[in-house]
Amino acid sequence: MAAKTLEDLFIDGVKDIYYAERKIIGALKKMSRGAKSPDLKAAFDLHLQETEGQVERLVQVFEILGKPVRGKTCPAIDGIIEEGQEILEEFKDSDALDAGLVAAAQAVEHYEIARYRTLATLAIQLGKLDAAELLQQTLAEETKTDDALTQLADAKGSTKGKKAA
Amino acid sequence: MAAKTLEDLFIDGVKDIYYAERKIIGALKKMSRGAKSPDLKAAFDLHLQETEGQVERLVQVFEILGKPVRGKTCPAIDGIIEEGQEILEEFKDSDALDAGLVAAAQAVEHYEIARYRTLATLAIQLGKLDAAELLQQTLAEETKTDDALTQLADAKGSTKGKKAA
Repeated sequence: MAAKTLEDLFIDGVKDIYYAERKIIGALKKMSRGAKSPDLKAAFDLHLQETEGQVERLVQVFEILGKPVRGKTCPAIDGIIEEGQEILEEFKDSDALDAGLVAAAQAVEHYEIARYRTLATLAIQLGKLDAAELLQQTLAEETKTDDALTQLADAKGSTKGKKAA
Repeated sequence: MAAKTLEDLFIDGVKDIYYAERKIIGALKKMSRGAKSPDLKAAFDLHLQETEGQVERLVQVFEILGKPVRGKTCPAIDGIIEEGQEILEEFKDSDALDAGLVAAAQAVEHYEIARYRTLATLAIQLGKLDAAELLQQTLAEETKTDDALTQLADAKGSTKGKKAA
């Protein structure tokens, strides 16, 4: 078997994030149903729509690579989502639920930011500039979502913190 | 059983990242042994030292909280590290190994950045400013490590990309 190349690393990464995005769609639906504040629910619903667009971009990346659209089990996102699920269960009746959901969503965002940044860099290094552009579009969206969640965390906590103090 | 509070969310998070940091120490040792480039090996070794200091800071946070030093299984970091292990095995004889290890390490860093940012915010909201300061110190280190890895990824790829093109 030939040694694996940088292109293999790139393709494996695209399959990994494709699997992850599809898992994230399911998780966002649950988190939106669980969220108490209308602002947080709206943020999850907006990101759900964006995520569907991001899956479409990945389908285009597979086309550019001439590869079948196929995911690869990603234990990282499975674990991250499992922790979000734990928050939903353990903090169900708690005032701190929304703060926990924001934290869970930011762990998801940061996983995606790390992966898309790597993939965009690899795409450029492999000279696949059209794929790089698609990946960078998603990276910009994920970064914006993470910033929006940080604002919600700060706003939310300033109320919750007073209650808990 | 009383509903969980924001303080419970904070304590659970500290236990989670304590478990994670100790897993990361083991992973960094393996990644340093696996890395081909001396620069990457040095980056992993430096971050290993830093991580040991970060564990010490978490012990101080437990003391501030008056809680026993105890980790809580964190499926997210288990999954992220499992993916790094896969890279070590699947790309063992490949020129792309180092690029894969950088990607794996950046996934770890981003998990930590998300968690420490949440924890520092919660500590401030709970009025635990001495804990917040310790968590922010670690957050700054993690962000710096992520930047250093990005530079290595860019430098590395510019050579590897040419080979693969």
